Amino acid sequence: MDANKVSVEPFQVMASLCTTTVIVGAVLPNGKPNFMAIAWCCPASHQPPSLLICSARRHLTNSAILANKAFSISIPSRALVEKLDFAGIKSGSATDKSTLFQTFECPLKGAPLLKECPVTIACSLSKHFEMEAHEIFVGKIEHVYANSSITTNGAVDALKMDPCLFSFSGPSYFQLGPKFAIPWSVGGGYNPASATTTTSASAARPFPHVDTSVCVGCGACAGSCVANPTLWTMDAEGHATFAVERVNDCVRCGHCVEGCPVSAISMKL
Amino acid sequence: MDANKVSVEPFQVMASLCTTTVIVGAVLPNGKPNFMAIAWCCPASHQPPSLLICSARRHLTNSAILANKAFSISIPSRALVEKLDFAGIKSGSATDKSTLFQTFECPLKGAPLLKECPVTIACSLSKHFEMEAHEIFVGKIEHVYANSSITTNGAVDALKMDPCLFSFSGPSYFQLGPKFAIPWSVGGGYNPASATTTTSASAARPFPHVDTSVCVGCGACAGSCVANPTLWTMDAEGHATFAVERVNDCVRCGHCVEGCPVSAISMKL
Repeated sequence: MDANKVSVEPFQVMASLCTTTVIVGAVLPNGKPNFMAIAWCCPASHQPPSLLICSARRHLTNSAILANKAFSISIPSRALVEKLDFAGIKSGSATDKSTLFQTFECPLKGAPLLKECPVTIACSLSKHFEMEAHEIFVGKIEHVYANSSITTNGAVDALKMDPCLFSFSGPSYFQLGPKFAIPWSVGGGYNPASATTTTSASAARPFPHVDTSVCVGCGACAGSCVANPTLWTMDAEGHATFAVERVNDCVRCGHCVEGCPVSAISMKL
Repeated sequence: MDANKVSVEPFQVMASLCTTTVIVGAVLPNGKPNFMAIAWCCPASHQPPSLLICSARRHLTNSAILANKAFSISIPSRALVEKLDFAGIKSGSATDKSTLFQTFECPLKGAPLLKECPVTIACSLSKHFEMEAHEIFVGKIEHVYANSSITTNGAVDALKMDPCLFSFSGPSYFQLGPKFAIPWSVGGGYNPASATTTTSASAARPFPHVDTSVCVGCGACAGSCVANPTLWTMDAEGHATFAVERVNDCVRCGHCVEGCPVSAISMKL
């Protein structure tokens, strides 16, 4: 073992994983909404776009999600930390939390949307996986509403959203810090042989090409673009076009390839 | 709908969820280690302590994890962002990444541990769940090694660890920002009726009590304590003792109650 390393108890490692704290909304059998704070939430799939939560079996919300086959995930800003934490301390079995947040009507029944949260998401339950003490609920994202003040070109700006990051380190709610590097780019020029960074990522990496004989014009390419959805437009025949003249705005991650339901996109130089 | 809200495409919501980027290590059929960057990683369970990763089906690592029933999860610091990103850009099918990180021997076969990462974790595969385009691998934490420079009282200090937080917002690697509130505490005095914070959390909340006639002295209470494991000691008879004189160091989260395998702990005033 490395001389600088010490062995740590398994549970203490939870301190290393900072996650975005969310509020899970569900409708109880009495018809009232309930709100639970959950830190163990992460994206589950690009296609279909899905999120997952891990929830301890004892939570009242779990049975409500199973009954309704729906739930909501909302992301509070730091300004809402007291309410968020209150929702985590108090169980809906003992405390009526139905008026803790203002809700607005959602096309999906069973998914109460939260007015005060900068991002609020209606999910239909797509998978339910059981473990010893916890359950995983995978939610297909059906509707997303965000405050216009935190969106840029139709995408959420994480820094403007100002989330409450949770870690067992402390435990703590941490603030999101500054951006320091670009994924699918900063490592593009890394040369393992010389262990130095040699060239910029974008120069040498393939970018999307559309086979218009296959494209059905559904727009999934723009929908799955993580960098700049405006790189994608539809031509006069209704086929997707990639703005090759703006290729440097593309991070070349290949999510459009994965997002295309008819395999019309490939990455080439 | 709220007038301030705009509808957002489902995939764009991935930008809202910042997660800790990790490197997943697995051993390929040729016996060499492979390293994959994964941002979709989160805690899965307290009992047994487990982590999960969501990985797209196309990844070479997935079949290696299934073959070995083991994998590693390592958390790189910001200083390693180029290597981390390189591991995400290059697939092990085309690039030999076996020398990208230095490894050290692990008691668990199939879980290459990473010397350069401040935290490196050996997991045995405990669950494997399938979705359309992604798979969830749940790993039971078997061994954890951390750099002594980033631990305090046997627990990982997230700020010293200096992780690379990933979000599709941009996309970006973000730095962890400062701590701004204490979970299971900041919301304790929130009064939903008056919508004001009235009292400190700890004054009114129950704390752990041990039934020594039930306690088997296993130490799981200390192992599951998220705030201050030194609150727990063993008395002369080998039973767990909670340092009631330091009750204000306890965040009263109840994880010790969940962690105790014989239900010897209850929360009381």
